Amino acid sequence: MNASPQCLNLWHVCETTRLDKARETLAAVLAEHADRLVGRFYEVFLKHDEASHFLSHSVVVDRLSPSLQRWLQSLATFDPNQGIEEFAERQRKMGEVHSRIKIPVHIVLEGASLIKSDVGEILLSNHGNREGATAIVLLNEVIDFAMLLMSQAYVTGVAQRAKIEEAYRLFTLGQDVSVERESQRAALLEWSQAAIFSLFGGAGGARLKPISQSEFGLWFRHRASVMFQGSIMLNSIDAAMKEIDEQLLPSIDSLPSLHGPDGAAPLVANLQARVEEIKFLLADLFQSLSASAGGRDPLTSTLSRKFLPSILGREVALSQQHGTPLAVMMIDADHFKQINDTRGHAAGDAVLRQIAEIIADNTRSADIVFRYGGEEFLVALVETNLEAALEVANRVRAAVMAAEITVGDGSKVHATVSIGVATHTGHPDYQHLINAADQALYRAKNEGRNRVIAA
Amino acid sequence: MNASPQCLNLWHVCETTRLDKARETLAAVLAEHADRLVGRFYEVFLKHDEASHFLSHSVVVDRLSPSLQRWLQSLATFDPNQGIEEFAERQRKMGEVHSRIKIPVHIVLEGASLIKSDVGEILLSNHGNREGATAIVLLNEVIDFAMLLMSQAYVTGVAQRAKIEEAYRLFTLGQDVSVERESQRAALLEWSQAAIFSLFGGAGGARLKPISQSEFGLWFRHRASVMFQGSIMLNSIDAAMKEIDEQLLPSIDSLPSLHGPDGAAPLVANLQARVEEIKFLLADLFQSLSASAGGRDPLTSTLSRKFLPSILGREVALSQQHGTPLAVMMIDADHFKQINDTRGHAAGDAVLRQIAEIIADNTRSADIVFRYGGEEFLVALVETNLEAALEVANRVRAAVMAAEITVGDGSKVHATVSIGVATHTGHPDYQHLINAADQALYRAKNEGRNRVIAA
Repeated sequence: MNASPQCLNLWHVCETTRLDKARETLAAVLAEHADRLVGRFYEVFLKHDEASHFLSHSVVVDRLSPSLQRWLQSLATFDPNQGIEEFAERQRKMGEVHSRIKIPVHIVLEGASLIKSDVGEILLSNHGNREGATAIVLLNEVIDFAMLLMSQAYVTGVAQRAKIEEAYRLFTLGQDVSVERESQRAALLEWSQAAIFSLFGGAGGARLKPISQSEFGLWFRHRASVMFQGSIMLNSIDAAMKEIDEQLLPSIDSLPSLHGPDGAAPLVANLQARVEEIKFLLADLFQSLSASAGGRDPLTSTLSRKFLPSILGREVALSQQHGTPLAVMMIDADHFKQINDTRGHAAGDAVLRQIAEIIADNTRSADIVFRYGGEEFLVALVETNLEAALEVANRVRAAVMAAEITVGDGSKVHATVSIGVATHTGHPDYQHLINAADQALYRAKNEGRNRVIAA
Repeated sequence: MNASPQCLNLWHVCETTRLDKARETLAAVLAEHADRLVGRFYEVFLKHDEASHFLSHSVVVDRLSPSLQRWLQSLATFDPNQGIEEFAERQRKMGEVHSRIKIPVHIVLEGASLIKSDVGEILLSNHGNREGATAIVLLNEVIDFAMLLMSQAYVTGVAQRAKIEEAYRLFTLGQDVSVERESQRAALLEWSQAAIFSLFGGAGGARLKPISQSEFGLWFRHRASVMFQGSIMLNSIDAAMKEIDEQLLPSIDSLPSLHGPDGAAPLVANLQARVEEIKFLLADLFQSLSASAGGRDPLTSTLSRKFLPSILGREVALSQQHGTPLAVMMIDADHFKQINDTRGHAAGDAVLRQIAEIIADNTRSADIVFRYGGEEFLVALVETNLEAALEVANRVRAAVMAAEITVGDGSKVHATVSIGVATHTGHPDYQHLINAADQALYRAKNEGRNRVIAA
């Protein structure tokens, strides 16, 4: 098994009779106060938004309380010398379920902590002090053991689920989005047409379906929210739909007549304006996809900075595990603002493209080049020590200085770069490596630019 | 702040003088035993493979021990009435760092548990019992509070990182893999050519570079391991490279002469065989990509089952939150094996395609259709109650029965389906919904097939 019962210290240090007495005491307290303890635990649950909006009161009472009761009982009867693997398996199972039903581990930890405090309080005031104290330590050790097993399974589940969710989101983006865009635009227009017809069909007309219940409304709630995760335009569309369903449609419905001076004309115009608004927002949403989907910077074809934590974290770990060196270059175009200001953006773009090309020519297929900022590149040189990294950096610096860069209009521009180089020194946090390269770059800038400085 | 100090029970129930005394006692014990406690904590770390292969002894001693010392001290001086947010922020920061440097939360929990046990032991034996017990409860509450804050930040970090990693993996797959395949095949052949030349260049030849140090070797370690994550072919390639570098090359190197009866011929043949093996495995690796990359079942264009946890989990949560209904249909082709056996696989494929088409015709764009198994589909009908779901199921059943399905050779085949329908009843675990639909399907099969049964 994974988690060692080393943390069940009491079984190593405590004589059997004292331990047995403590288990007995604990079992009695847990049995006597079971209902209150379970109640306390779920108070914590329902207090947290992450859990309460999801777990209704009835779910808690009907389904979770009995299982928590059983869990409490199992704590008092637990004996690491008998069936430890069974106990461990049950805790892991619970951790898995929590990750599936999205009960955050910190809420479970908080609930468990409350139970420990409560029981501790009772034990201290009702029992002999030494006996009570042993029972407190016992309960703590067993609950902590359960918590670490649960957390481990929970974290594994959360990470797996996060991967699947991201894969699904990217999958929906990779689908033929132009088809989806057109079919949802059509679904929206279909609803608005049906709405107008139904309104002017008079009292005999069929009752109007709310837009949130339409094909478009369903798609919006169940699909768009995944595809366009995090976009603020989602909120605007949601608000427009709510306004239609909760204000405009009821107002129109309650009119005595659709014609005449109190007629529906202004309301219908309003309705149409809201539908138009949704149509524009929808187009914008799909438009925004193409801009953000790629993993590469469109100008220089270097890797998007968003992958940096994943890749550098992995490379630092590989370096640590295998004892291989790892170097990072931070490369910044000198006087870039000036080039942009005096020669125009096309010249600036040409400079960045040329620098990226020179970096690519001087690195291997396993090295990784990121567009790190406006005029900054970060390069991870795998299995490369400081000496070799400085050599690469100097080649890049010399090549940029020597290059005659052609702008789109045929004119030429020259550029230089400053480079900071750092190597992995054993610190497990990749952020330290980036910071070190950044500081070296800063010094290279300060000392006159067009130079390479090692951290 | 997020985590309520409600779990710091002692501050609510304990009179100030008793609490102050307990804090004093605790501070003294933590200061006296700091070195031993830190040592105990890192014993746990280094015992676990997940942490030890990453954290070398020197990293632990130089960097982590001082920060753990400071953390221990902060536990004794912590007072929720003063600067609780500062304390909380520090714990969250630590959780973030742990997620970045991949120290699993369960190991931190285990270490913390050990510290609690150890200190508890000391307090029980060296101090007045009531006073010792209060100090134990105090330490437990403060450590548990720290742990829940740390876990929360850790889990957030892990989930974010898992998403980025998956996005990067999928991004590398989405690149032009045929270019990558060819260039790495070329890199491999380049190494093997250089190897042969260098061998027969005799004693004057340049020293041979190990294959693991070649462009191909670097690519394999730093790129292929991401692109082909989890493939067992990676291990085979790794083993072949190891054999080359650790056995074949040293044997060839140590030969007195490359010619004559003790010559290199058999060893070189062996080397060539290993390179060929790697070449084939590499081709297979890239081949395997196209099969697994898609999110849809290639035969029926329904969604891959791998997205099920993400989508159903989300739909169950939406249903729970908004009080909207949710239905699941489990649809299974009747006597499918028989169709395959008597009419051939083309007929079976045609039946599955036809069923998928009929399902698509009878569902809306927000509903989700999965290929669940060989001849089984799972359909999530969003915002649909049992009555409406049964209607859809019966339409699908009738349409399949009525369809005359054309096989590739022009012949016709008929098929029926059995369908189990279940609706979300409030259980937060989507697996219960699937099980319920599955059991209903089982009954539909048992009761004679070609029918719809509600759970």
